[in-house]
Amino acid sequence: MNYRFILLILGRILVLAGVAMMPSLLVSFLYGDGAHLSFILSMCVLLVSGIAMVLLLKKHKKIMQPREGFITVALCWIAISLAGALPPYISGAIPNYIDALFEMIAGFTTTGATILPSVEALPESIIFWRAFSQWLGGMGVLMLTLAILPAGERGVYNLMRAESTGPSSERIVPRIRRSATILYSIYLALTLLQTLMLLIGKMSLYDALTHAFATAGTGGFSSRDMSVGAFDSGYIEYTIGAFMLLFSINFGLYYAVVARRFSRIGKNTEIRAFLSIIAIATVLITADLVRHGVYGSIEETVRHSFFHTASLGSSTAFFTVDYNLWPDLSRAVLMCLMFIGGCAGSTSSGIKVVRFVTLCKSAVREVKRIIHPRSVSIVQMNGEPVQDKALAGVLHYFALYVFTLIAATLLVSLDNMGAEATFSGVLGMLSNAGPGIGLVGPTANYAGFSVMSKLVLSMTMLIGRLEIYPMLMLIIPSAWKRV
Amino acid sequence: MNYRFILLILGRILVLAGVAMMPSLLVSFLYGDGAHLSFILSMCVLLVSGIAMVLLLKKHKKIMQPREGFITVALCWIAISLAGALPPYISGAIPNYIDALFEMIAGFTTTGATILPSVEALPESIIFWRAFSQWLGGMGVLMLTLAILPAGERGVYNLMRAESTGPSSERIVPRIRRSATILYSIYLALTLLQTLMLLIGKMSLYDALTHAFATAGTGGFSSRDMSVGAFDSGYIEYTIGAFMLLFSINFGLYYAVVARRFSRIGKNTEIRAFLSIIAIATVLITADLVRHGVYGSIEETVRHSFFHTASLGSSTAFFTVDYNLWPDLSRAVLMCLMFIGGCAGSTSSGIKVVRFVTLCKSAVREVKRIIHPRSVSIVQMNGEPVQDKALAGVLHYFALYVFTLIAATLLVSLDNMGAEATFSGVLGMLSNAGPGIGLVGPTANYAGFSVMSKLVLSMTMLIGRLEIYPMLMLIIPSAWKRV
Repeated sequence: MNYRFILLILGRILVLAGVAMMPSLLVSFLYGDGAHLSFILSMCVLLVSGIAMVLLLKKHKKIMQPREGFITVALCWIAISLAGALPPYISGAIPNYIDALFEMIAGFTTTGATILPSVEALPESIIFWRAFSQWLGGMGVLMLTLAILPAGERGVYNLMRAESTGPSSERIVPRIRRSATILYSIYLALTLLQTLMLLIGKMSLYDALTHAFATAGTGGFSSRDMSVGAFDSGYIEYTIGAFMLLFSINFGLYYAVVARRFSRIGKNTEIRAFLSIIAIATVLITADLVRHGVYGSIEETVRHSFFHTASLGSSTAFFTVDYNLWPDLSRAVLMCLMFIGGCAGSTSSGIKVVRFVTLCKSAVREVKRIIHPRSVSIVQMNGEPVQDKALAGVLHYFALYVFTLIAATLLVSLDNMGAEATFSGVLGMLSNAGPGIGLVGPTANYAGFSVMSKLVLSMTMLIGRLEIYPMLMLIIPSAWKRV
Repeated sequence: MNYRFILLILGRILVLAGVAMMPSLLVSFLYGDGAHLSFILSMCVLLVSGIAMVLLLKKHKKIMQPREGFITVALCWIAISLAGALPPYISGAIPNYIDALFEMIAGFTTTGATILPSVEALPESIIFWRAFSQWLGGMGVLMLTLAILPAGERGVYNLMRAESTGPSSERIVPRIRRSATILYSIYLALTLLQTLMLLIGKMSLYDALTHAFATAGTGGFSSRDMSVGAFDSGYIEYTIGAFMLLFSINFGLYYAVVARRFSRIGKNTEIRAFLSIIAIATVLITADLVRHGVYGSIEETVRHSFFHTASLGSSTAFFTVDYNLWPDLSRAVLMCLMFIGGCAGSTSSGIKVVRFVTLCKSAVREVKRIIHPRSVSIVQMNGEPVQDKALAGVLHYFALYVFTLIAATLLVSLDNMGAEATFSGVLGMLSNAGPGIGLVGPTANYAGFSVMSKLVLSMTMLIGRLEIYPMLMLIIPSAWKRV
């Protein structure tokens, strides 16, 4: 285990966390919300310790093995969450550090679950910091360091692989640093475009930025207690709905557009499946809402059902109405969307559409094999055959995902919050969507859980964001041993 | 598709159903409960049509392909359920035929879920028939015909394979008919032993037989509204608890005992895992009940926690107290037990312990591969390596099981019975355990669901009992085509 290199990267992450607090400090001065000292103090601590680590450790062989990549990523995400929780804790906005940590893990992992009964009571800079953490976490904090730091380190691809979403991480161009830069540029451009469109919808710059950050990371932290519903504007709802979907699509495809490789988009199985799932879910929920006469007009029904399909399908979990009051079928469809999630290589979470489609195709092949034992049939994705090893990887990931869901549910059920809240809450954490149904519905919060459960739920968010293996490596002794 | 052979076997199943009603008819005469005419009428219809089919179709080539085996088994189970529902319907005990069908599918599939608010209001012979159907369904109705009919048909192993539980059906002796006879003899002997022990506990012969039948099939249909709790006897509770476990163990192991092949038992991974799961669950529930001070004495706590662990771990779902009133952790553990189920080759259901253990071992191997990419590690069961194809089969079964759970939940959620009842109810059906938690808890029933949902739940019970593939074949057009 190359401990010195791991510590060096941890140092960089602390510096990144410190620098990333700059915009929030600016917001604090602009609004005079009184939280500036907490940001200044946090930044001093992080920058001094981070820079010290980087300077002390920079002269060491910079090679990283795959398992070191997994462990480094897990440690970095824990570190940035611990660091990010400093300002809300020091400022007294969230007086309990465990609560502040839960809130910031929900930020960086883009889960968007909260322990706060009211967001609007917070200082503006803290609200801004919550939203900005989702922007950082969405595309990945390590990828950001790769995008801005000089190249020349070997094996850092393992970091990108462990942090990015989906079963396989493609380098969109051969060089890892350039890949990271391109992805972050696309991410930034889309975020700015959304901000602009929200400004056109007469949002204030502050609201536009916070909502664009939380949309880009598919996080869901709003600056308002009633989330997007507070703006009461169809234009804003459709805009945010559309951008939630845009941020749930494989970013490699945007590069394909820029590089004019349109055939790659047409052949992409995942995006077709994702859009089909969103369309089917919207129709199902619309029909269910009409059947129960929940809303007066058909436009309102379609708008709410599209918005929440996009919101939970992208694992964002913004809301415009309390969907917890919807009939069971609609709520069940939303839970399924959370479970499946968006596309690989996007900022969304869940098991990912590509894995879901692979599972379905593989199951169909298994059935065919039983019907015609001597037939040969191949699972294809994007027009290419999927190797047996990749198939096995997807099947195992699915099993581990369900096992994690069950294990966390067992631990959290010690709190006796009822089966619905416990199970859907854990699913909300693991899928990084945020709220569940019942007592942890969109207008509710996670404040009622015990300290133990908040820690379990925090770990579950990290497990979900980093796709299980990095967090698993942390607790497996043999992963730490020298080979 | 060898339609004539399939119809011949269907005819035999109708005859079997008719003959199997004989003991219930006897009970009806003994108790003078007035249901005898409904049994006589049903038997006439079934025997006449069944014998006619057998006689008309007996001269045909008797060869069966694997997929024909699957389809035949699915059709036979639907047929015997339709037939079995005749007496309760005709007698007016269950005046709605869909309800009667639900009840009898819950019987034959050994689910033990009911639509009846009170069992004790039924004629004794109908109660007896419900319990006896669980005895028939537990070991398998087709296996019974194989055990008692002459040999000489080719490919009937496919029937046994499609009907028996677990990932692979072993013939305990080379000849298929002798295997079936041996298994049924062990089954009968254990049932008689349990009846005797219940008689010693001062149960009436009638109660002893119904409870032994429902235990043997791990079904859970009691003759009392308060299930086993009605007898208020620690002896009876421990006896039934122990026999629920005995019937959840691979029957091949009993043959190994009889044949003095003790090494096979020691090497069996599944039974050790099963007993460990039961022990851990009992300890967890006991601790949880003590923590919440649910019962006064430790003996009472241990007894209830052991009984319900055995009951849901064997997918029987007898109860002595309303475990729905227990704290969340205990209820969550019980749901996990339902999900996992008992051993393969037993009368219990769920995904089966062997699959669960294989999944866990396979997942561990996957993690090891990531830590040490060049290491070679093999998944072992019973001291022997598991082939990759068998592993893939288990992984696919798990995925299909979860997908079925989700799909049925979506359909049943149309009834708006709440997330807890809908999800746990569907899990109760698929795992063939019976009740869930909340509105479908042990003391509640499924009467409140719509006709549509009752049919979906009935199908889910059959899917669970026949382990997905046979029911799936029914709706796949290519399974019906000639090769």
